[in-house]
Amino acid sequence: MDVLAAAQRLETAGRDVVHMEVGEPAFGAPAAARRALEAAFSAGETLGYTGGLGIPALRQAIAGLYRRRHGLAIDPARVVVTAGSSAAFQLAFLGLFEAGARVGIADPGYPAYRNILFALGLEAVRIETHLATRYQPVPSDVPAADGLDGLLVASPANPTGTMLDRPALEALTAACADEGAILICDEIYHGLTYGDAAVSALEVTDDVIVIGSFSKYYAMTGWRIGWMVVPEGLVRPLETLAQNLFICPPHASQVAALGALSADGEAEVARHLESYRANRRAVVAALPALGFRDIAPCDGAFYAYARLPEGEGDSTEFCERLLAEQGVALTPGLDFDPVRGDETVRLSFAQAPDRIAEGLRRLEAFMAREPAAV
Amino acid sequence: MDVLAAAQRLETAGRDVVHMEVGEPAFGAPAAARRALEAAFSAGETLGYTGGLGIPALRQAIAGLYRRRHGLAIDPARVVVTAGSSAAFQLAFLGLFEAGARVGIADPGYPAYRNILFALGLEAVRIETHLATRYQPVPSDVPAADGLDGLLVASPANPTGTMLDRPALEALTAACADEGAILICDEIYHGLTYGDAAVSALEVTDDVIVIGSFSKYYAMTGWRIGWMVVPEGLVRPLETLAQNLFICPPHASQVAALGALSADGEAEVARHLESYRANRRAVVAALPALGFRDIAPCDGAFYAYARLPEGEGDSTEFCERLLAEQGVALTPGLDFDPVRGDETVRLSFAQAPDRIAEGLRRLEAFMAREPAAV
Repeated sequence: MDVLAAAQRLETAGRDVVHMEVGEPAFGAPAAARRALEAAFSAGETLGYTGGLGIPALRQAIAGLYRRRHGLAIDPARVVVTAGSSAAFQLAFLGLFEAGARVGIADPGYPAYRNILFALGLEAVRIETHLATRYQPVPSDVPAADGLDGLLVASPANPTGTMLDRPALEALTAACADEGAILICDEIYHGLTYGDAAVSALEVTDDVIVIGSFSKYYAMTGWRIGWMVVPEGLVRPLETLAQNLFICPPHASQVAALGALSADGEAEVARHLESYRANRRAVVAALPALGFRDIAPCDGAFYAYARLPEGEGDSTEFCERLLAEQGVALTPGLDFDPVRGDETVRLSFAQAPDRIAEGLRRLEAFMAREPAAV
Repeated sequence: MDVLAAAQRLETAGRDVVHMEVGEPAFGAPAAARRALEAAFSAGETLGYTGGLGIPALRQAIAGLYRRRHGLAIDPARVVVTAGSSAAFQLAFLGLFEAGARVGIADPGYPAYRNILFALGLEAVRIETHLATRYQPVPSDVPAADGLDGLLVASPANPTGTMLDRPALEALTAACADEGAILICDEIYHGLTYGDAAVSALEVTDDVIVIGSFSKYYAMTGWRIGWMVVPEGLVRPLETLAQNLFICPPHASQVAALGALSADGEAEVARHLESYRANRRAVVAALPALGFRDIAPCDGAFYAYARLPEGEGDSTEFCERLLAEQGVALTPGLDFDPVRGDETVRLSFAQAPDRIAEGLRRLEAFMAREPAAV
């Protein structure tokens, strides 16, 4: 957030900044999403409150997504439409846990996890993960954390882009079942994969909370629209909670999301993936050449997470200097790993290919200008 | 909610139902709101994430609303745009209070207040209010509640439509200051008044959290867009909390809300008020004629709250029979006052005048058919 603010100050002062810090596509919502909303306007729809779980057509269409992507028959009644994954996390945490409950999260990980847990009076239990296991929690972490009430994993993950494959998900599911911990799987980057397709935790078990989003793959960040798939018995309690906390997800965003799931919408966002793929290729080639180390295998999302080259100092200072000298914004690792993040950075390659290429050129210039101190 | 579900079942079965249970205008967003969004589409705006506090132009326009309505110069920096007042309540409760804090709320009152407080681990302290004081808390309630950390009032209120005038607000503000309780004022029905204009708590003090909304006066319920005005020192902590809990309010809704605040938008919604005024006149004339008692003075909003006629039994049963026999949906008082609400009902007159007139005709037929049991 500090990087973002500093980058905005530079831009206000007239500098050109390459944004490799934000986890946000350069694209807007697909045209089909905007057209769906314009059609609702033309039809005179008032777009008033919807039910707390969302409009039935969207819940059905989201269930259809699991059929297309994973061959799964999900009952639309288990789909809870939410105001972005942010609202889904709140509903999951408040709906599943009592005050003081202990929820395991990976370090490095998305910083809002621990902040939301803290704000809601729950305890975030940090699980130190390692490159050898793709910076993902492993089954032995569950008993080792001693009395977890829940485990939150992300696949593809932020900041690393790494995924949990089917055996890894099966093993974590079993470990959670053994310990009586509820598994929550953040799948908001699904669709954004470059080799193997992402496995949904729903392929492994129905006894899981899966959280999805239109923000990333469908490029609808600002629309605040996402969903969760929950066990049947949780639908009614979560509906009541959602009605009280949110009344309903934004109706216009629900209509737009339904448009995004149309054939035209899907075709448009599938083309975005080719941009990210080109960006990823460039980033994955550049980083080791520039001396970056311990690069996480970025199976998905649009992030690369790496240790700074030998001899570079603190990553926060590195990011500040890179921004000041070259106008390239990266995110320092401490945002994701408060303990070990002073040596790491996250590069986002969500922006357009010409911008990412420019960012990498500037990064190369920065590294050349400032030889490593060894 | 049970009434709403039963009403929907009847409609699905082909019955015509007059909706005097929902607190939702029959109108959609003003045309200017829709046009603003279409213009953003045409301009190729991506509508991505905004800052956690909302877009600067909307924060400024909301500050301008306080100048127009109340002659107040509010610094736009104190305006926090939120995903409806629902998000504002969450932010206020989590940003102001520690777990277990005691927050006073009026009975009767909006049921989500106590449900949100409960969900967030806070204690809702019910304050029994009385018709003689417009079903509003009075200053002596604050010390009497013994250690309140906060007091939440609403003006105009749901379900009663009653308001706090300036002396009442001043007295409550002083009582809260004496007891060290933070005052939160729900002003989401501002604009919907039929005699005196609503007084904002901001006219009395800057040391208050005021919550506003585009849902009611601007007829934008489903857009989930509202705001809060907070003391300067709270802006930064609330920004951090908002970023973590919500990232940002829905961008499309922010653009639409800015359109609603244009001269065209204001002109359109000002005309809605004439419908509500006609409805209110009809309701206020009909209720005493039909034997309803203790009718709260509905200064604002679009609700009337009254005790059932002499000899009528339980209000939940009354509402069920009225719906089944005449297809008119009202809300039983227990939704708003768990202790004394079994004798009261809330009539919403937010729908179109012909529908409200039809609802009153059916209510009259129902009362004639079922003579009081005395």
